[in-house]
Amino acid sequence: MKVILFGATGAIGTQVQKALETSGHEVIGVGRKTGRYQADMGDRESLRKLYQTIGSFDAVVSAAGEVAFAPLERLGAEEWKRSLEGKFLGQVQLVQEAIPYIREKGSFTLVSGILADEPIVAGAAATAVNRAIEGFALAAAIELPKGLRINVVSPTVLEESMKTYGPFFPGFIPVPGAKVAQAFLKSILGAQTGEVYRVF
Amino acid sequence: MKVILFGATGAIGTQVQKALETSGHEVIGVGRKTGRYQADMGDRESLRKLYQTIGSFDAVVSAAGEVAFAPLERLGAEEWKRSLEGKFLGQVQLVQEAIPYIREKGSFTLVSGILADEPIVAGAAATAVNRAIEGFALAAAIELPKGLRINVVSPTVLEESMKTYGPFFPGFIPVPGAKVAQAFLKSILGAQTGEVYRVF
Repeated sequence: MKVILFGATGAIGTQVQKALETSGHEVIGVGRKTGRYQADMGDRESLRKLYQTIGSFDAVVSAAGEVAFAPLERLGAEEWKRSLEGKFLGQVQLVQEAIPYIREKGSFTLVSGILADEPIVAGAAATAVNRAIEGFALAAAIELPKGLRINVVSPTVLEESMKTYGPFFPGFIPVPGAKVAQAFLKSILGAQTGEVYRVF
Repeated sequence: MKVILFGATGAIGTQVQKALETSGHEVIGVGRKTGRYQADMGDRESLRKLYQTIGSFDAVVSAAGEVAFAPLERLGAEEWKRSLEGKFLGQVQLVQEAIPYIREKGSFTLVSGILADEPIVAGAAATAVNRAIEGFALAAAIELPKGLRINVVSPTVLEESMKTYGPFFPGFIPVPGAKVAQAFLKSILGAQTGEVYRVF
């Protein structure tokens, strides 16, 4: 299977790429400034060019997207814009623009996160955006043409990221990135659609 | 209780106003172009002016917000922007800007909708945006100062709106607007926070 992976060099992306390659699949890593191919998921034109260049493929996977973390009173217009465009619209666009190019019965796998279900202080944008991603996938699942599927993986904090993010997640039990990667494989290689695979 | 009501002249707003006034509360209706006061919930400056003018109040209620309905392949940048700004950011802003003015132990009540849980064709923006609203409220509930509360009412299609929207909601059992209004009263006059009151 030929898989396009956004955020291939991130903590999750690295593990997803490894798990896919171990299973014998071809991974085309895409980063904004790194990876074999470069594209900006916030820019539809950049996505179209990427998909045209690659030609045909079986799955598009996102392990990318940034949101602003700030206390409620400091989540201003700029922080909301950055979060909505960076993690939500970016992932929506990488799905929408791929539809003409992806093979029949292909799949999309997006990433949300545990904050969708369990908010933390300074995480209101993350909770809202993660839920929006899950809602988009649920709704897109009933409209996608060509037998295409779409799911979301919602990981808790990774063991590998505890040094950086641990203090923001009191009492959250971290999981290894390799376990999160398996949820991506469940989506990519499985047959379900409109699902949220929670890894926590 | 003094209640600021956005979307006071809409199908839901009318019923909320009636229910609140019947219970002896003062309602200050706000519309974009109608109502006793006018403000654009998409414009933070306009909201600040509104709240400063009104001075002090006990609750801010939203029965307002528009999303784009379009098949997945025609949900372009413009439709997403309109939906995210019109229903999501507008409601986020009317909460954030009210915080300095609203009385201690006051409350916010926002509106999402059944499409958050049950998608329909051409409703991907509605599903995503409604979920984002519910996520925002869940997260804001743990950060709001002054003992403030926040909840969301998620109505199904109204009996009063069936002529217009009925064909888009096959099999959805409509409810009277007066029943939806009671969920708003539960939020405004009750004591819970971070709840989604589903009326369907």
